[in-house]
Amino acid sequence: MATAQKTVTDICAEAKVASRQLGLLDSETKNRALNAIADALDAQADQIVAANAKDLEAGRENKLEAALMDRLMLDHGRLASIADDVRKIATLEDPVGRLIREFRLYNGLDVRKIAVPLGVIAVVYEARPNVTIDAAALCLKSGNAIVLRGSSIATNSNAVLAQVARDAIASAGVPEAAISIVNGGDRDELRDLATQEGVIDLIIPRGGEGLKHALKSVATVPVIYAAAGNNHVYVDASANLDWAEEIVVNAKVQRPGVCNAAETLLVHEDIAKEFLPRVLKRLEAEGVELRADAQARALAGVDAGEIAAVEDADWDTEYLALILAVRVVDSVDTAIEHVNLHGTGHSEAIVTDSNTAAHKFTTQIDAACVYVNASTRFTDGGEFGLGAEIGNSTQKLHARGPIALRELCSYKYVVEGDGQVRS
Amino acid sequence: MATAQKTVTDICAEAKVASRQLGLLDSETKNRALNAIADALDAQADQIVAANAKDLEAGRENKLEAALMDRLMLDHGRLASIADDVRKIATLEDPVGRLIREFRLYNGLDVRKIAVPLGVIAVVYEARPNVTIDAAALCLKSGNAIVLRGSSIATNSNAVLAQVARDAIASAGVPEAAISIVNGGDRDELRDLATQEGVIDLIIPRGGEGLKHALKSVATVPVIYAAAGNNHVYVDASANLDWAEEIVVNAKVQRPGVCNAAETLLVHEDIAKEFLPRVLKRLEAEGVELRADAQARALAGVDAGEIAAVEDADWDTEYLALILAVRVVDSVDTAIEHVNLHGTGHSEAIVTDSNTAAHKFTTQIDAACVYVNASTRFTDGGEFGLGAEIGNSTQKLHARGPIALRELCSYKYVVEGDGQVRS
Repeated sequence: MATAQKTVTDICAEAKVASRQLGLLDSETKNRALNAIADALDAQADQIVAANAKDLEAGRENKLEAALMDRLMLDHGRLASIADDVRKIATLEDPVGRLIREFRLYNGLDVRKIAVPLGVIAVVYEARPNVTIDAAALCLKSGNAIVLRGSSIATNSNAVLAQVARDAIASAGVPEAAISIVNGGDRDELRDLATQEGVIDLIIPRGGEGLKHALKSVATVPVIYAAAGNNHVYVDASANLDWAEEIVVNAKVQRPGVCNAAETLLVHEDIAKEFLPRVLKRLEAEGVELRADAQARALAGVDAGEIAAVEDADWDTEYLALILAVRVVDSVDTAIEHVNLHGTGHSEAIVTDSNTAAHKFTTQIDAACVYVNASTRFTDGGEFGLGAEIGNSTQKLHARGPIALRELCSYKYVVEGDGQVRS
Repeated sequence: MATAQKTVTDICAEAKVASRQLGLLDSETKNRALNAIADALDAQADQIVAANAKDLEAGRENKLEAALMDRLMLDHGRLASIADDVRKIATLEDPVGRLIREFRLYNGLDVRKIAVPLGVIAVVYEARPNVTIDAAALCLKSGNAIVLRGSSIATNSNAVLAQVARDAIASAGVPEAAISIVNGGDRDELRDLATQEGVIDLIIPRGGEGLKHALKSVATVPVIYAAAGNNHVYVDASANLDWAEEIVVNAKVQRPGVCNAAETLLVHEDIAKEFLPRVLKRLEAEGVELRADAQARALAGVDAGEIAAVEDADWDTEYLALILAVRVVDSVDTAIEHVNLHGTGHSEAIVTDSNTAAHKFTTQIDAACVYVNASTRFTDGGEFGLGAEIGNSTQKLHARGPIALRELCSYKYVVEGDGQVRS
């Protein structure tokens, strides 16, 4: 790595300089650089897989768990898929220079509010080496310089991936300092990165609660925390129960380890006796462990002893596993109250045929994404047609929901006149 | 004060509950409440002025400086003006519920991105009691509950103003906990406020660097720092010198103590000999103290001894006074470099007849507001036609430039389908 000997401060300062040039690049140059990255990933796949093999070997020696080893692993197939994602980003609309709003003032001044890059974005992540390329590509497309800090587990993979990307963009006329990597060593490095006020414009952590907590205690630059999702599906009295069954199963089972999966099922008492037996049977067949309140257990259509009693702590738990908490409620209002009390503001769904219930739910639920008659699993930049995403936000400031290209931009006001002064 | 005996945590919790109701209010109810505040300010002006007199008397005893005493003072004229501003806010477009974007996904899901209130906003401010009403009115209009923390200097004024506003909105059917005030006592209170994670959604400090610094060291909730403005006017070789003269004088002199005033004049060397004598003479006539580089002093048309030599520290100083630093530059590129190095990203102006120079300046200057042929003094929510503002941001995240009604909102995605699940 060309940057390996430099301090975090040096690397960030170079990224800042590069960001000034990046913000001025035309779309064609940026897209050429993105395609150059994709082509280089294809061309240098053997070298990347060899570097990854070193990380995998070290991982085996350190007895990393199987799921982590799987996330760490790169093969030719995965690399080709990463390259394709970069090519897709090249085809997306350039978010920079977008005219957000324009108006003429009383005195003839013309005001245009225009999207501009944020500047330098740091992305701090864990074992997945694909983030190195995904995040770099999104930042390049949005005119931002990126400073990457991956996990020490993936040092060899990340170093080669970043160098391949740097060389590729340089060949396309983009300064290589647009993509930098710091080693992923100790916590000092994280602190150094998180305190570059006036240099780093935003840090985005992609990882677990430990990483977020470490960052929160030291960061003086702005951070957008990617979100935990304690999500609910509420099946209303008027629900189409076929839809409800498919939505509940999909939200829980299709990919239980992700932040837009459901963790709690709320069922209106009027249809609980009809709906619970069929949906719980189906969930059990899918291997879901159920934890239900007394009313739900009584109506489950099986011996109450077969379903565990829910405990208070369950309502606040993001299982990220094949476990589902179940509660019977007496109204959409009680459902809303439950969701706003226990939810994390990520993705919430109602299944209903009632406009009144849908309207109440969508207006009163305080969450990034609120679904009517659809699975929570659609909260995703790709699914939303926004292109790739760099994470999902449950913050309310700046970006809420998918953090895609537009969310990686700020704006400026350009005001043009002919000599106006203020009186 | 009804809230005087409660802890900061109690007050914030009540504000959170109120915010849920506020976010659902229709525009008519909010506007009725705003007009009720305005009418109550008129009706209870005597009582407010009497409370203010106590603060003024304490201020005199504590020998507050004249400028501070002036900011603290409320009379019938000022109150009428505050009431009028509230009535104006009532006439503005409701920012809540605005459809920001909508699209249909490949699978038939309809996605709408809709503006929603942030929730609870805390505003921390110094001696000006008018902020109590201005900020409360902006938050009410944007569906946010507000927790105010003014200065202890204005305790009596703020308490009465807040109570008048609370009573007025209650009479219009809005929960009085939508507007709360904490006493403005010690730093513990500030820390209590700034650490209400999950309750306070945003803190906006309105005050000097000391307040910002105190907040920065304790805040765990999001903060938008209102900005310092070390602003420049650059007069290009091709400038209309009549416009340039008026713009420079206006930006420096019209109100030197505010953040959108200019602090440094940059002049292209090609027109410095013609322009400097006339503009510096005019500035001196207006009482401006000049600090110029050697070239500017040589071309000033007076004895160099009459103008102080600028020092390096001047370039980074926001004087907020009738002082101006002056530099001659060899190109628009040097001017841009100077501004990006020394500016605070607030308001920057170029005076030019060249499209090339204007384009360079507007694209390369990294600031919230960039002006071509106009004074920097227009950076203001009112001037921009956005209605009142709660401050000006030089941050790049969420809000940059005037923080007006739209900037007091977040958004949510509402997604409607007919049983879609993810495959």
